[in-house]
Amino acid sequence: MTRVQSTFSVGHRLGRFIWSVVRLLLFRPFPRMCFGWRRLLLRLFGAHVHPTARVYGTARIWAPWNLVMGPYSRLSDEVDCYNVATVTLGEEAIVSQYAYLCTAGHDIHRPDFPLVSAPIVLGRKSWVCAKAIIAMGVTVGEGAVVAMGAVATKSVEPWAVVGGNPAVAIGRRSPKALKARN
Amino acid sequence: MTRVQSTFSVGHRLGRFIWSVVRLLLFRPFPRMCFGWRRLLLRLFGAHVHPTARVYGTARIWAPWNLVMGPYSRLSDEVDCYNVATVTLGEEAIVSQYAYLCTAGHDIHRPDFPLVSAPIVLGRKSWVCAKAIIAMGVTVGEGAVVAMGAVATKSVEPWAVVGGNPAVAIGRRSPKALKARN
Amino acid sequence: MTRVQSTFSVGHRLGRFIWSVVRLLLFRPFPRMCFGWRRLLLRLFGAHVHPTARVYGTARIWAPWNLVMGPYSRLSDEVDCYNVATVTLGEEAIVSQYAYLCTAGHDIHRPDFPLVSAPIVLGRKSWVCAKAIIAMGVTVGEGAVVAMGAVATKSVEPWAVVGGNPAVAIGRRSPKALKARN
Repeated sequence: MTRVQSTFSVGHRLGRFIWSVVRLLLFRPFPRMCFGWRRLLLRLFGAHVHPTARVYGTARIWAPWNLVMGPYSRLSDEVDCYNVATVTLGEEAIVSQYAYLCTAGHDIHRPDFPLVSAPIVLGRKSWVCAKAIIAMGVTVGEGAVVAMGAVATKSVEPWAVVGGNPAVAIGRRSPKALKARN
Repeated sequence: MTRVQSTFSVGHRLGRFIWSVVRLLLFRPFPRMCFGWRRLLLRLFGAHVHPTARVYGTARIWAPWNLVMGPYSRLSDEVDCYNVATVTLGEEAIVSQYAYLCTAGHDIHRPDFPLVSAPIVLGRKSWVCAKAIIAMGVTVGEGAVVAMGAVATKSVEPWAVVGGNPAVAIGRRSPKALKARN
Repeated sequence: MTRVQSTFSVGHRLGRFIWSVVRLLLFRPFPRMCFGWRRLLLRLFGAHVHPTARVYGTARIWAPWNLVMGPYSRLSDEVDCYNVATVTLGEEAIVSQYAYLCTAGHDIHRPDFPLVSAPIVLGRKSWVCAKAIIAMGVTVGEGAVVAMGAVATKSVEPWAVVGGNPAVAIGRRSPKALKARN
């Protein structure tokens, strides 16, 4: 009989344990607006977080050392960033409340059901809306939008708007119109 | 470079801060059946809640002053009522556990990505099932049902049953049969 | 006017109240790896849990006496097992984080809107992925997979892979290839 066993090293597990305690006692309970404090904690655990990036206190980061956040990017309340592989947010990329970024799963076609993972990349000015789910290996292109509650199982083209479960194209944004703001 | 900035007044933010503290210390921890106590707290913050309406302790109300609840209406456990605009529940309207009522978003076609919002109206005898999501501006008609996990991006006709993501018609209820209960 | 009323007995309600207190104080706060302790608590409340089954601390069991877990089966973090009717996990059945097993609802076609329920059965080696939802009365066949975020409203055939909302067939697993691991 085959048991589901973890493939993580002792060092990795220890790091995650310490982080889980820090998250509970020092990250989550602090006032909402203490973005600098939370950036500091994330950096102490290896995250690359731009000084203008914002992470809210109720967001869950599985492994800070697998998190990269560009300028003005944001992880909102109750986001679950399950970053077994790296999660990268480009400049101004926004992840709204309750979204789920899932970089890992199991290979259902192999008898030992191994844990598998692949990075998630959220492009510049992209928006993952509330309650959306992003699957492992997905790249959300520059300016693209994954609508509320959508489940993105495939990469999303730049400036596309996708919605539904599974997510399909439901519209487009105009890069030209949006560039006007810079 | 454009930053995501809030458009809310200082007064509004202060109100929400005080409410968040009250919610944490006085609303949420009280025993499950203290419906009268929670109605009282909501009313102190401007909600219009009928004496027979029920809100469970783990429900999250973003702004009580934007909440209107008719007779025997209900917000169940873990419902998130993100009422930047008004959320109105008609008589006997029921919102089940983990449902998400989302009255706000961003205009993805404007360069300044402004916060936009629109009210949600849940008609008399309507039912928003567990884990369903209701988008901004949606009216769920009298007696209509939004099935478990469905994402309603458009208004739902009276006595219709919608399901899926995006939600589409999957059935109907008979008003005549149901009127028998009165 | 018709009120939504509970159909549960006083004994049942008392049992659930005591369990909710035990869950809060003794089940949830203990360290992640205390699987034996949580099995003990569940059994004290009537669950049939195999000595190799694992339930994580943040999983929510509505009624332990309606839970049956086979060898090496698993209820992961933040799973909500709303088992008004029995939930059965076969050998090596896995339920991943945030999944929702919902055995109850309301009959929307009857004037008194009665609570109705039906068991959920998760077959041997089946996998309910993260954020998936299983509706009342559904049987997930042996080796079947309900993909991330999928909403299974109907039973799933053995070795089928279903995804989307509503969930439809998106693939198959090969029992022969998988049997190699035993």
